[in-house]
Amino acid sequence: MIPRENHEAGLPIAVLYCASRGMMLDRIAHIRETAMFAPRRYRHIVGNVRIVAVERASVRAEANYAVFETTYDQKTQIYNVGKYVDELVLADGGLKFRERLAVFDSSVIPTSLIYPI
Amino acid sequence: MIPRENHEAGLPIAVLYCASRGMMLDRIAHIRETAMFAPRRYRHIVGNVRIVAVERASVRAEANYAVFETTYDQKTQIYNVGKYVDELVLADGGLKFRERLAVFDSSVIPTSLIYPI
Amino acid sequence: MIPRENHEAGLPIAVLYCASRGMMLDRIAHIRETAMFAPRRYRHIVGNVRIVAVERASVRAEANYAVFETTYDQKTQIYNVGKYVDELVLADGGLKFRERLAVFDSSVIPTSLIYPI
Repeated sequence: MIPRENHEAGLPIAVLYCASRGMMLDRIAHIRETAMFAPRRYRHIVGNVRIVAVERASVRAEANYAVFETTYDQKTQIYNVGKYVDELVLADGGLKFRERLAVFDSSVIPTSLIYPI
Repeated sequence: MIPRENHEAGLPIAVLYCASRGMMLDRIAHIRETAMFAPRRYRHIVGNVRIVAVERASVRAEANYAVFETTYDQKTQIYNVGKYVDELVLADGGLKFRERLAVFDSSVIPTSLIYPI
Repeated sequence: MIPRENHEAGLPIAVLYCASRGMMLDRIAHIRETAMFAPRRYRHIVGNVRIVAVERASVRAEANYAVFETTYDQKTQIYNVGKYVDELVLADGGLKFRERLAVFDSSVIPTSLIYPI
C-alpha cells in the first residue's frame, strides 16, 4: 500500500510493505495474534481490468478499486480508494501475482489500518 | 437480503426474503401501492464476477457489490455493501436466476429499506 | 454530465456539455489555465458493461459508475454516481467514443465540479 504521491514521484516508501513470503507471514501473525482492534469487514469493489503490457512470461495489469469498511453497529464507510498496479507471471499453468501495489489517493491514513487492501 | 453474520453461521433469517414469485409480487405491490417513502434512487456497482462452481445445469457465481442511495436534495450516501451469491440455471436457451442472495456486511439496517438490492 | 431527471424527461440541459472537439479544448484550457481550485483526485469505479445495441457501424453500451473525490488532508468522499450511456463507432480499426453521457443521480451539484466525469 503506497500513497499515489510517492508512487508518482518514484519514491518507494509505503505505509504497508510486504516484499517476501516471510514479511507476509509476519503481517498475518501480527493481525492474528498480537494486534488489538475492533472487528471490521472490508468489502472490495474492483473495476474493469486494463491489461497494460504483455511480455513473454508476465503481464502487467491495472484496475481501480474502492474498499469499504464496516464495523459493528456503525454505518459502512469509505475506507480507501486507488488503483491496483499488478504484475502477474505464468506459474504452474496459471497466473500468479509477482507484485501487487495498491496505490491509494488519500494523504490521510486511517488509524485503523489493520488488513492490507 | 441476509446479514453476513447469519449467512456465515448457516442461519436463514433474512431482512428481506422472497422465495417465490408470489412473494416477489407481494413485495412489488407493497412498494407500488402501500408503502410511503421519499423518492430515492439506488445505484448498483457490481464488481468482477467469480464463477464458483459449474454443474450440469447450473452455475454458482459471486460478485461484490456496493449500492449508493440518493434522495432529493441530499448528497449520495453509501446504502449497502456486500456480496451477491447467485445460482443460475439454464432455461429457455439462456441463464436465469434460481436464487440471488445479497449477503451484506453491516449490522445496521437502514430505516429506509424499500427496494431489494 | 446530465442529471437523470432531465435525461429521463428527454430534456437536453446538462451541467457540463461538450459536443465538439473545440468545446473540449475550451474546457481543458479552462481547467489548466484559468480555474482556481484546491488540488483533488477523482477515482472512477466502473461496473460491468452492458451492450445495449449493436448496429452496422456503432455500438451502444451502458455501465454504472461511482466517482470518489479525495482532496488534500481530507477523507475520500462520494463525488458522483450514475450511469454512462455511450455510443461507440468503428474508426481506425478500433472503437472510439462518438458520445458519452454521464447521467447522474443526484439533484445536488457539488460546488467543486472541475473535471468532467
